[in-house]
Amino acid sequence: MAKQDSVPHRQRRERRRRSDGERSRGAILDEAARLATVEGISGLSMSRLADAVGMSKSGLFAHFGSKEELQLATIETANGVFETEVLEPAEGATGGLDRLRRLTDSYLRYLEVENFPGGCFFASVLAEVDMQPGAVRDRLVAFLYDWLGRLEAAVGDAQREGDIDPGEDAGQLVFEIEAALFLANAQFVVARAPEPIERARRAIEQRIDAALTGTAPAAIRKRRAPSPDRAG
Amino acid sequence: MAKQDSVPHRQRRERRRRSDGERSRGAILDEAARLATVEGISGLSMSRLADAVGMSKSGLFAHFGSKEELQLATIETANGVFETEVLEPAEGATGGLDRLRRLTDSYLRYLEVENFPGGCFFASVLAEVDMQPGAVRDRLVAFLYDWLGRLEAAVGDAQREGDIDPGEDAGQLVFEIEAALFLANAQFVVARAPEPIERARRAIEQRIDAALTGTAPAAIRKRRAPSPDRAG
Repeated sequence: MAKQDSVPHRQRRERRRRSDGERSRGAILDEAARLATVEGISGLSMSRLADAVGMSKSGLFAHFGSKEELQLATIETANGVFETEVLEPAEGATGGLDRLRRLTDSYLRYLEVENFPGGCFFASVLAEVDMQPGAVRDRLVAFLYDWLGRLEAAVGDAQREGDIDPGEDAGQLVFEIEAALFLANAQFVVARAPEPIERARRAIEQRIDAALTGTAPAAIRKRRAPSPDRAG
Repeated sequence: MAKQDSVPHRQRRERRRRSDGERSRGAILDEAARLATVEGISGLSMSRLADAVGMSKSGLFAHFGSKEELQLATIETANGVFETEVLEPAEGATGGLDRLRRLTDSYLRYLEVENFPGGCFFASVLAEVDMQPGAVRDRLVAFLYDWLGRLEAAVGDAQREGDIDPGEDAGQLVFEIEAALFLANAQFVVARAPEPIERARRAIEQRIDAALTGTAPAAIRKRRAPSPDRAG
């Protein structure tokens, strides 16, 4: 009995230790991601972060071997937030056009709910390190191209599916959509008012509407109603 | 003779001394503005800048009493570049529509010729300090609202002059134009390729064209030809 019990007990203890460590690491990285949008990811020193999370600098070093390791782990934490808040809501989309609208809607909501105090983590931090070559910049640029690639793939699918005019330059359309999202973030951080987010929503809605094929009535083109009696 | 000569000589000497001081101060601030778009305006320490311009830290202190004074003087230097490169080319505009087009054209040219290594000084530095209250942020926000106000005034004039549809929401139109300019800068810094600037030019041209009143043929609406036989 004693032996049989001791194994699960040790496992439980190890599981708890691992889980405490993960929780603690997670809490540090959540704080690091928030701080990075306020003070910058370059200013994310071990001592500054240790102060913010109430840990010793040596305790932080047990989690992250170097400042760059901390910065890269912080980016992955922010990426997890972006996946949950922006990418996942678009996963159930019925097609390219629906996916494009869901991605832009969820991005604007991700700004509105202020996941990070300094606005979109990626916009904030890439603007900071865009002139500083290295692994941190490379990771952020890869994130950016992945995001733009998702928007462009959604436009491409919508063109193949007959919803967006095949004559539209997908790269140009994505540039204009991303421009509205990017400025919404910057102006929201400065003004803390809903206006730029509303302006971006209107700009994107009208720009997408203008890119639609003319085969269905506007209301249906706008929100492809599944009801068959409204299909064009 | 000696006395008569001595006065202009002293004046010349003083003028040269003042002018050397100004030149030196100007050279320091030019370097500071360039550095700020690469390493950030917060990282613009006296010692870092002293290294960059090959002066002693105490020599720099003779010019600027504090880091904030240096930062504010750097912003005024960048503002001078912006006035020369972006605002002045629009001064001879024939009306609001022409002024709007000149302002956006000259902004995109100001990016293309890389006045600053890290792109538009104001976009770069405001993104950095947008979460840091103080005189530096206040000055940059004032710059931003001045710029947006100029675009909005140009749209308003163009509406009163009958070129832009009075039904257009001027704030919305300016948001969309500024969005293209703002993203052009950010993507140009990351990619160092002309594509984002070309995309912004196309987006703005098409967006302005869509806002024009329908009273003149498109070619004339586009570049209000002064020739009377082409007037609509």
